[in-house]
Amino acid sequence: MSEKKYLILAEEFSHDPHYAKTARGVMRYRRDSVVAMLDSKRAGESEDGVPIVGTVEEGLGFEPNTALVGVVTQGGHFPGDWQELLKSCVVSGLDLENGLHVRLRDIPGLPDLAAKHAVELRDLREPPTDLSTATGENLEAAATIVLSVGSDCAIGKMTATCELDLEARRRGLKSVFVPTGQTGIAIAGWGISVDAVVSDFLAGAAERLVVEGAKRGDLLWVEGQGAILHPVYSGVTVGLIHGSAPHLYVLCHEVGRTVVEGDATESPILSLTELIDLHERMSLKLRPARVAAIALNTSGVSEEEAHAAIAAAEEETGLPADDPVRFGAGKILDGVLKLID
Amino acid sequence: MSEKKYLILAEEFSHDPHYAKTARGVMRYRRDSVVAMLDSKRAGESEDGVPIVGTVEEGLGFEPNTALVGVVTQGGHFPGDWQELLKSCVVSGLDLENGLHVRLRDIPGLPDLAAKHAVELRDLREPPTDLSTATGENLEAAATIVLSVGSDCAIGKMTATCELDLEARRRGLKSVFVPTGQTGIAIAGWGISVDAVVSDFLAGAAERLVVEGAKRGDLLWVEGQGAILHPVYSGVTVGLIHGSAPHLYVLCHEVGRTVVEGDATESPILSLTELIDLHERMSLKLRPARVAAIALNTSGVSEEEAHAAIAAAEEETGLPADDPVRFGAGKILDGVLKLID
Repeated sequence: MSEKKYLILAEEFSHDPHYAKTARGVMRYRRDSVVAMLDSKRAGESEDGVPIVGTVEEGLGFEPNTALVGVVTQGGHFPGDWQELLKSCVVSGLDLENGLHVRLRDIPGLPDLAAKHAVELRDLREPPTDLSTATGENLEAAATIVLSVGSDCAIGKMTATCELDLEARRRGLKSVFVPTGQTGIAIAGWGISVDAVVSDFLAGAAERLVVEGAKRGDLLWVEGQGAILHPVYSGVTVGLIHGSAPHLYVLCHEVGRTVVEGDATESPILSLTELIDLHERMSLKLRPARVAAIALNTSGVSEEEAHAAIAAAEEETGLPADDPVRFGAGKILDGVLKLID
Repeated sequence: MSEKKYLILAEEFSHDPHYAKTARGVMRYRRDSVVAMLDSKRAGESEDGVPIVGTVEEGLGFEPNTALVGVVTQGGHFPGDWQELLKSCVVSGLDLENGLHVRLRDIPGLPDLAAKHAVELRDLREPPTDLSTATGENLEAAATIVLSVGSDCAIGKMTATCELDLEARRRGLKSVFVPTGQTGIAIAGWGISVDAVVSDFLAGAAERLVVEGAKRGDLLWVEGQGAILHPVYSGVTVGLIHGSAPHLYVLCHEVGRTVVEGDATESPILSLTELIDLHERMSLKLRPARVAAIALNTSGVSEEEAHAAIAAAEEETGLPADDPVRFGAGKILDGVLKLID
């Protein structure tokens, strides 16, 4: 496999932590593979040493071999003019990687164009074709399984999971990040996008991921999806909880968020105490899982407010809490390791 | 649309309430459309006036126009020699309807054979191609929504749902059975098999069903799927709970069942009290739903034991309980109607 050199396509959204989730995740956790990012509104700027370009042609100057679709949208459709952008990447000889629901091969004309220019179209959300229902093998995996769960979508579950894995590896543990979504897959180079799986095979896909993870190490950090009471994505959340069979949870929450994001009905978010209780009760009967620690995303508040929110979360829950991005993942990792024999 | 005349294919399993779920559901709730049932082990017998035949050729004597796959299997694969059976139906000029995960069109040679003999292949689990994520429209549907939930799979949720709908219609209510699985679809002639939907669109599919149901009546009985703590199917269950946005639940349980059926790990089943509490707490925050009544499947015990089990369930839960098949759905329906304004 040739070394990957990404041109990240983040047109219009490169700054947005929600819509550019894939772009930002790969920038943070696979920085070495990124040669340029495309966002015409920020052309000429740079970010973490990565040049931001306005056109594909300009991006080619940095010698990428792959263009990565760096945005996500609810429901996963491509905005209209993105199709032209993708075609110009293909014409320029770049492989394409995409994590949206819409498949590259379903874009009219794109597969023919790719064949003509001898480039690959890779849909990261495309599940394996041989999935089946869960078998109970998840309970046999020789590893400690920690699942990140959360109060909502897009609050930093994947980020917390990556930070915990990085910190555990720094400490010499045989730690593995287990990706369950397109960004995680782009970062780790393996995984299954569980929300793209047929519902009946959801737990089976999660089971396969922890079985595979246990071959790679003995401390698995499974990226959570959705939220247990999310009106749109809860099915994925619960299938992942039961299929990945965690021993422990890390509960993620964004400070200040009170209603479910991107939900037209503006459902209220549960309190941390309610979330802890509900997740513990929704665990597999044969694998009762406890919440070990709270990962707070404090990116929207001042440092002083962040410390206050962390103290309040510890006071409310009696568990260690911290912002793993802002203050490091050490305290949360300690909280998890304390509960492992 | 020509009138449907089913030859139900139930080879080897016509007696089995689990594997022949589709066969038995259609026999019970769409009896008028069935002209014969195929099960070579019972050839020559009859059931509810329907002749049981040993071969397709023999079945043709009763002038069916459609062969319905009447069995389900975990994971939904076709047993090997079923493919020959299906081909002989096609060669005999019968349309085919199938509710398994495996699609008829994916069986090597079958689509060509169907084209040659001018018959239709209909996969009842094939979801609509235009599904999307849930939008909140479920909360706007002008109907009272009652969802059947349960302690396990295959304990009679669909049957209880059909009985409640029948009883409500007998009383002149504008009642609608909302099918969410292959058997329900075969019975009602519409619906979406929610466990065949891509996980991200699970709640969206359930939402569409109640929006459609509200066009057909104002008291919707939504067929539940799986169980909230089922190690394999819980994702479907919870997606359906949140997407269908019920006002009330009917909780179904099979008397005597203590572990999850067909689960290699033999997970224990929750008590009725635990199930009530967990379902109520797992309801949408904007649509807190209560359990209105308990539907017990007492088919495995004597009538005396059935009455005792019903009394025990009422004592434990403080809710009306009954076996809607054995003793009629009236008491459960009364319990539901009492909670509707």
